[in-house]
Amino acid sequence: MSAVSPLAPSSFPELPPVDGVRLGAMEAGIKYKGRHDLALWLLDAGTTVAGTFTKSLTAGAPVLWSQKSLKEGGGSARAIVVNSGNSNAFTGKAGMTTVLATGEKAAELAGCALNEVYIASTGVIGEPIPADHIPTMLPRLHNVIEPDLWHDAGRAIMTTDTFPKFATATAQIGGVSVRINGVAKGSGMIAPDMATMLGFLCTDAAIPAGVLQTMLSGVVDRSFNAITVDSDTSTSDTVLLCATGKAGNAAPSSADDPALADFAAKLEVICLDLAHQIVRDGEGASKFVEIAVTGADTDLAARKIGLSIANSPLVKTAIAGEDANWGRIVMAVGKSGEKADRDRLQIHIGGVKITDHGQVVDGYDEAPVAEHMKGQEISIEVEIGVGSGHAKVWTCDLTHGYIEINADYRS
Amino acid sequence: MSAVSPLAPSSFPELPPVDGVRLGAMEAGIKYKGRHDLALWLLDAGTTVAGTFTKSLTAGAPVLWSQKSLKEGGGSARAIVVNSGNSNAFTGKAGMTTVLATGEKAAELAGCALNEVYIASTGVIGEPIPADHIPTMLPRLHNVIEPDLWHDAGRAIMTTDTFPKFATATAQIGGVSVRINGVAKGSGMIAPDMATMLGFLCTDAAIPAGVLQTMLSGVVDRSFNAITVDSDTSTSDTVLLCATGKAGNAAPSSADDPALADFAAKLEVICLDLAHQIVRDGEGASKFVEIAVTGADTDLAARKIGLSIANSPLVKTAIAGEDANWGRIVMAVGKSGEKADRDRLQIHIGGVKITDHGQVVDGYDEAPVAEHMKGQEISIEVEIGVGSGHAKVWTCDLTHGYIEINADYRS
Repeated sequence: MSAVSPLAPSSFPELPPVDGVRLGAMEAGIKYKGRHDLALWLLDAGTTVAGTFTKSLTAGAPVLWSQKSLKEGGGSARAIVVNSGNSNAFTGKAGMTTVLATGEKAAELAGCALNEVYIASTGVIGEPIPADHIPTMLPRLHNVIEPDLWHDAGRAIMTTDTFPKFATATAQIGGVSVRINGVAKGSGMIAPDMATMLGFLCTDAAIPAGVLQTMLSGVVDRSFNAITVDSDTSTSDTVLLCATGKAGNAAPSSADDPALADFAAKLEVICLDLAHQIVRDGEGASKFVEIAVTGADTDLAARKIGLSIANSPLVKTAIAGEDANWGRIVMAVGKSGEKADRDRLQIHIGGVKITDHGQVVDGYDEAPVAEHMKGQEISIEVEIGVGSGHAKVWTCDLTHGYIEINADYRS
Repeated sequence: MSAVSPLAPSSFPELPPVDGVRLGAMEAGIKYKGRHDLALWLLDAGTTVAGTFTKSLTAGAPVLWSQKSLKEGGGSARAIVVNSGNSNAFTGKAGMTTVLATGEKAAELAGCALNEVYIASTGVIGEPIPADHIPTMLPRLHNVIEPDLWHDAGRAIMTTDTFPKFATATAQIGGVSVRINGVAKGSGMIAPDMATMLGFLCTDAAIPAGVLQTMLSGVVDRSFNAITVDSDTSTSDTVLLCATGKAGNAAPSSADDPALADFAAKLEVICLDLAHQIVRDGEGASKFVEIAVTGADTDLAARKIGLSIANSPLVKTAIAGEDANWGRIVMAVGKSGEKADRDRLQIHIGGVKITDHGQVVDGYDEAPVAEHMKGQEISIEVEIGVGSGHAKVWTCDLTHGYIEINADYRS
């Protein structure tokens, strides 16, 4: 395995129990040896759920299963089954047979309907998991679940991740304190022979499923959907947010309810934290890069321009080389296809203004910018000058490490 | 400089004169030392022209100049001035002053109107070229131009190219033999601190400008616009096709004229040849990859799917690692956003069918595919199964060499 990313956090937060949630992990032998690779969340009756999934048109069987549950399950979730080592994607009818058998066993253990079960898988594409493998393991896993095993679950869903991703917060809803816990995995949008960005969040807040979905969709757009390691989209991406209602707050009727303001803010903090951890564990990453785009035609245009910069191999290799190569940023703005005015473009790197009015500023001194490029945290700000749309996106640099992980993997 | 690409041709074709065209190159000292960096084409009166340019919204001053000439010059071209070492892009008003001074001097030497002059520049972004630099050099260059200096011109426009790109052909129009010569440069869609894919083609055929433009636009879509090295779009891309009319064929009235069939076919051969040479000189390239997409919703959808595969860092690194990682091809089809049916997708690599009906074929033997991956010419065929749209695109692999060239450039 690769060494731990140089951008890894120095310690991991404790995740206290979320009332109504029990979880755990086990070594199921799906692919890895000597580590957990199967996780189970059991959720008390009354738990609501929201989900977002990969937009890939070649999504895997677990994604199709979970999308169906979200559509037909009345907003209720009782079990989440997640395995690593095999994505069960592009496995045809065999893949559907496997998720059905897994769903049936999980429903039996949780005492719930099939469409209250969610399934996610991450790992190699194109190799079916024998249909009885996970169902055979689940009863043993069901026997060991506890309220406080978030670290076990977070580690079990890792593939080529070099560190697990955790986040936790408390929020106030109408004077009631609620908890939000989250775990995630991902080390590329898709990792070597592996797939997937996964995120699982639980709260004890009482929030109706529809409201939960509105909040999650908005936050995911500004967090998990605003990061990129290599521009590649997995066939298995899944984020689930479950609310057990045990905290006893008055259930809000809409996402605009002022009582939800603090919860919404904390949810965004958690999702951003997890999303940034995924970037910090980007394959081969040596630098964490924030790209702030302002003055675009719309917020969507700003995000597209940001992602055009973040996905540019030339920008990413320049950052790896600690080269303040702003010409490549100009290029990436130009290729985004979004409205831009070359002569109004302003670029700051590390807070230093480099260009203005379509050319480099008078007396540009590269020294402080060069110094900034040597750090691990890189800041790029781009003012487009045509409107008020803004967005932030995050990425990492493109290094020899990425090539080693992805090209040299089987050698 | 980098070693010559392992995919370089073993020899370069002679380019015979094209009647009505004189050209040459010189060492103008714009950036490089000890090599030519300025090229000039002079075209006899009556020469028609067609052009295509970068779609970048941050296009450089030379592109804006040439686009204006094409729009306002009545389809006539008399001079083309091309320099390497400096793209004169993102140079604000200084850049426009430079192209105006260059255009005025070239028009004076050619005895033509300003808008019969075309200018292209390739190299570093953001550093203005002093306005009098090229005008001062042009009279000396004008003194040495000859009909047979295509090799000089082709070498003068190189930046990080490891070999020059030439192609030549003869075609029949209504029983008259005409010649087509072309040169191109490019080693990334944009190279280290450099920009640009450039192509300059001349023929002695008589073809009205409007007809020439229709033919060029179609061919460029299937050749230069169907290649990608790193998904990055230059601020300076330019392709010009000039027709001197000296061959004396009857001028066709439309691009559909049957008399143009052979010429159109040869023009496509030349453009494809030059485009493929650019891919073979892709930064760090060790393998040439053809991706044929069939069965897509439309031809445009097929091209988008092809480019999604060709631009995927995970597909490109897998090819570099000689890994027949078809799961990443599935992923890239899925992320393209184009209509696809996972369960009808067929993938062939090196002519061997790998997947069918949404899963790997029964008894798949990876040995012949693994053998194919060891070669320098990689073939990927993807049948989408939803329509009759088809397209071919070409790319190279993503290797440590790319990172070395682009990240380690200034170290």
